[in-house]
Amino acid sequence: MKLRELADRLNCRLEGDGEVNIRRVAGIEHAGPGDLTFVANPKYNALLPQTRASAVILAPDAAARPSSAAVLRSDTPYLTFAHAVGLLTDASPPPRGIDRLSAIAADARLAGDVSIGAFVTIGAGASSGSRRVIYPNVVVGPGARVADDCVIHSQASIRERVVIGNRVVVQDGAVIGSDGFGFVKQADDTHLKIPQHADVVVEDDVEIGANTTIDRPAVGETRIRAGAKIDNLVQIAHGVTIGERTLLAGQVGIAGSTIVEDDVVMAGQVGVAGHLRIGKGVVATAQTGIPNSLEPGEFVSGYPAIANRDWLKASAIFRHLPALKNRVVELERRIAELEEKLAACRTPSDR
Amino acid sequence: MKLRELADRLNCRLEGDGEVNIRRVAGIEHAGPGDLTFVANPKYNALLPQTRASAVILAPDAAARPSSAAVLRSDTPYLTFAHAVGLLTDASPPPRGIDRLSAIAADARLAGDVSIGAFVTIGAGASSGSRRVIYPNVVVGPGARVADDCVIHSQASIRERVVIGNRVVVQDGAVIGSDGFGFVKQADDTHLKIPQHADVVVEDDVEIGANTTIDRPAVGETRIRAGAKIDNLVQIAHGVTIGERTLLAGQVGIAGSTIVEDDVVMAGQVGVAGHLRIGKGVVATAQTGIPNSLEPGEFVSGYPAIANRDWLKASAIFRHLPALKNRVVELERRIAELEEKLAACRTPSDR
Amino acid sequence: MKLRELADRLNCRLEGDGEVNIRRVAGIEHAGPGDLTFVANPKYNALLPQTRASAVILAPDAAARPSSAAVLRSDTPYLTFAHAVGLLTDASPPPRGIDRLSAIAADARLAGDVSIGAFVTIGAGASSGSRRVIYPNVVVGPGARVADDCVIHSQASIRERVVIGNRVVVQDGAVIGSDGFGFVKQADDTHLKIPQHADVVVEDDVEIGANTTIDRPAVGETRIRAGAKIDNLVQIAHGVTIGERTLLAGQVGIAGSTIVEDDVVMAGQVGVAGHLRIGKGVVATAQTGIPNSLEPGEFVSGYPAIANRDWLKASAIFRHLPALKNRVVELERRIAELEEKLAACRTPSDR
Repeated sequence: MKLRELADRLNCRLEGDGEVNIRRVAGIEHAGPGDLTFVANPKYNALLPQTRASAVILAPDAAARPSSAAVLRSDTPYLTFAHAVGLLTDASPPPRGIDRLSAIAADARLAGDVSIGAFVTIGAGASSGSRRVIYPNVVVGPGARVADDCVIHSQASIRERVVIGNRVVVQDGAVIGSDGFGFVKQADDTHLKIPQHADVVVEDDVEIGANTTIDRPAVGETRIRAGAKIDNLVQIAHGVTIGERTLLAGQVGIAGSTIVEDDVVMAGQVGVAGHLRIGKGVVATAQTGIPNSLEPGEFVSGYPAIANRDWLKASAIFRHLPALKNRVVELERRIAELEEKLAACRTPSDR
Repeated sequence: MKLRELADRLNCRLEGDGEVNIRRVAGIEHAGPGDLTFVANPKYNALLPQTRASAVILAPDAAARPSSAAVLRSDTPYLTFAHAVGLLTDASPPPRGIDRLSAIAADARLAGDVSIGAFVTIGAGASSGSRRVIYPNVVVGPGARVADDCVIHSQASIRERVVIGNRVVVQDGAVIGSDGFGFVKQADDTHLKIPQHADVVVEDDVEIGANTTIDRPAVGETRIRAGAKIDNLVQIAHGVTIGERTLLAGQVGIAGSTIVEDDVVMAGQVGVAGHLRIGKGVVATAQTGIPNSLEPGEFVSGYPAIANRDWLKASAIFRHLPALKNRVVELERRIAELEEKLAACRTPSDR
Repeated sequence: MKLRELADRLNCRLEGDGEVNIRRVAGIEHAGPGDLTFVANPKYNALLPQTRASAVILAPDAAARPSSAAVLRSDTPYLTFAHAVGLLTDASPPPRGIDRLSAIAADARLAGDVSIGAFVTIGAGASSGSRRVIYPNVVVGPGARVADDCVIHSQASIRERVVIGNRVVVQDGAVIGSDGFGFVKQADDTHLKIPQHADVVVEDDVEIGANTTIDRPAVGETRIRAGAKIDNLVQIAHGVTIGERTLLAGQVGIAGSTIVEDDVVMAGQVGVAGHLRIGKGVVATAQTGIPNSLEPGEFVSGYPAIANRDWLKASAIFRHLPALKNRVVELERRIAELEEKLAACRTPSDR
């Protein structure tokens, strides 16, 4: 695509040669001729003068500029970069239509413009909206409903009666609607399974990562609210609610019945106990373990989770605990010596 | 179902109108007309008077009671709730029979009353017991043996020669019998794979969660004993034994050759090192890291795992380490002052 | 196989009866007649005299020896054990050829000697080298390239345009090339997906564990270098590089754009933040959380990761924090007493 056309479609002001052909977007360290790159973080400014890219997306007030590349000015360089990637790449969806090697129940209701790959199973009474893309080997259970413009990648399992909104993306191998981990201990110490057949709802604009699992509950529902983004290998237990626009990074685990409110951010491997409420806008750093409910806006770390500021300070001391202990030992020695001296000192004055 | 019939089938004493129709079981906060709810935990007693449910399961000695709903009395309200969910919900299994779009080896031995969905592969010499339900896109490897009344959900992989007992439930995407992570470092620093072809045995009444992985060893066996329940995304390495009735919550990881004895409970994201013995009845709270063997009955937390009681106390101090350090600094200041004064004090008496 | 033949093929000196038939390799605790076992770790020497195995692999200078079993002498007993397992076991691959129930794109290029199981999908323009084994229900996306002698187990998803080298083993359910977790926050607080269509390269001799996920980036590449071994349920985010011969144990997570250099070892559940460089030969113990780059050769533990030696010492004190705090309280009491006494003591001498 000509840079001039790209500038138009990205709503950027063009500085330089608009006739150059742009083939792809690349990071500033690897970009070469034919590449569009970007600087959103000033720490990469130093790389700008010698970049070999053909064009660079820059903020209007960017301090540095490339020596030879053209410039696309944008108030939001990172957002413009995201749009540029979309314009210059292709998703290779399966061809429009329904692969003949699929198993679609006779009463499943599919819009006419779906793409359904090989070995896809769609159960009785399931329904599918427009422009849905289902990659090979996906299973959609009986009665599941998937709305418009969804993309379901290979090997995903959408269990019976799960409801999925518009523009949802499900990555490969994700499981939505597996049985919650609910058992009752019986008199003989064995565990009776509580049947888990209640609802799972995934609202609009959600993304669900590869091999992530979202359980269904025995009663009530598990709900992923609009715009939540969930990374790979995340565990969402039965009856959990994930708030709007909440971000859960890889390998996060949320135990049963916990409510995560809107705009929460959890970094990788965070764990949250069951039956809690995590307030709007909470941020938890990687590996944080959250055993109690949190107020809106808290910024937490550690296990058990405490305020990030306190955790940073305490962690800085943790590594010096041996030294701290030695200082206590030394204090004990000095004080014993003082006590002895004072006894000696007082004796004369007691005379 | 009429409440009177439900009471009969649940062995509960009915107080109130037995003619009301019950459609489903619901949590007390969400229950409405036509719902059966329950109170097993006294902290929900306060919600009881205003519930809109048609009926409530209550202990014989429950302090509160609903203002209008009927009551089912049970000595074990939570267990009765579990049974009620089973009576009032449906699992939507695939239809009885073998889907014509499946690949069943000529010499596989299947009982006559199985349900096998589309795109299921059953390898050479594999066998399957009665009333087994296999959802679409499952792979059962050559020589694997699955006993009676099992349910294998979509996308699961049961590898070659794995042995599965009666009434086992395997959730979607679980892998049983993948190669253990066993390598030998060679003189050139590369790692030679030790072939992992030995046995995996899953005994009766086990549940295995979605996308959980259970590896096979090079020699010996990996064994999940009767009644163990394993949640989603759990890693069971090669040669591990999981004891009877043991519960492993989401994202737990057990390293190679470790023996977990009976009735152990591990909360989410617990990790256990290899070649250990975790004694009967051990309980580990979430995110605990266990580097050493544990005696039966230990209750542990933290990493490295210590007694939960000690961990709670130490963690409470951890967050106040900066204050503790300041107290030590202050002590050092005071003791230096004292030492100086004492020197001054002693000087006159030494004269 | 006769022990004499096994000794020849393993290049071991045989001591004892070479005519005995060896059926399998077994651990020393479980070995019986017909089994070959081994002792690579001197702590198992005590079990040697009473072993019921027919033969034992031992180092030339091994202190103990079995009372009745034959001996195979090897300079590297564990390596010889690994080779012996390979000679005495069978992998049960699917039969040579392409299952008729597979969906191979018309323009896919497959070598003549591949084994492709049922319900395998191979996308347009994908290519496959010699002696490749693809188990049932695998999906290989359009344009993906898999070289010679690879084994791809059931339910794996190799996404579009992923490049896989020679002798790579992919375990069941692994996902290679899923979309990276890349979003840009927009003015209305929603997150715009950055299309993730760039490259993923898996070099020669890599092993990828069951249900592990490897994401593709928006720009640049994700690369797993030659000889790296990755266990189950590991998360490799977009743009990550994993070095040669690096070992990642179960449930490790590496955040975006981090570079892990060669010969690194991470034990189970380790987490690494994004945009870091982990130097050659770094070792991290289980559950370590790494928030900053590490120099080559560091040996770290804890979260935030510190030198293992310091962490061991600090952890040993952590559990005694209540006692340490009590010692500080006691010091404060004693020093207050001293201060009081000294005030009394000084008073007379001031007179």
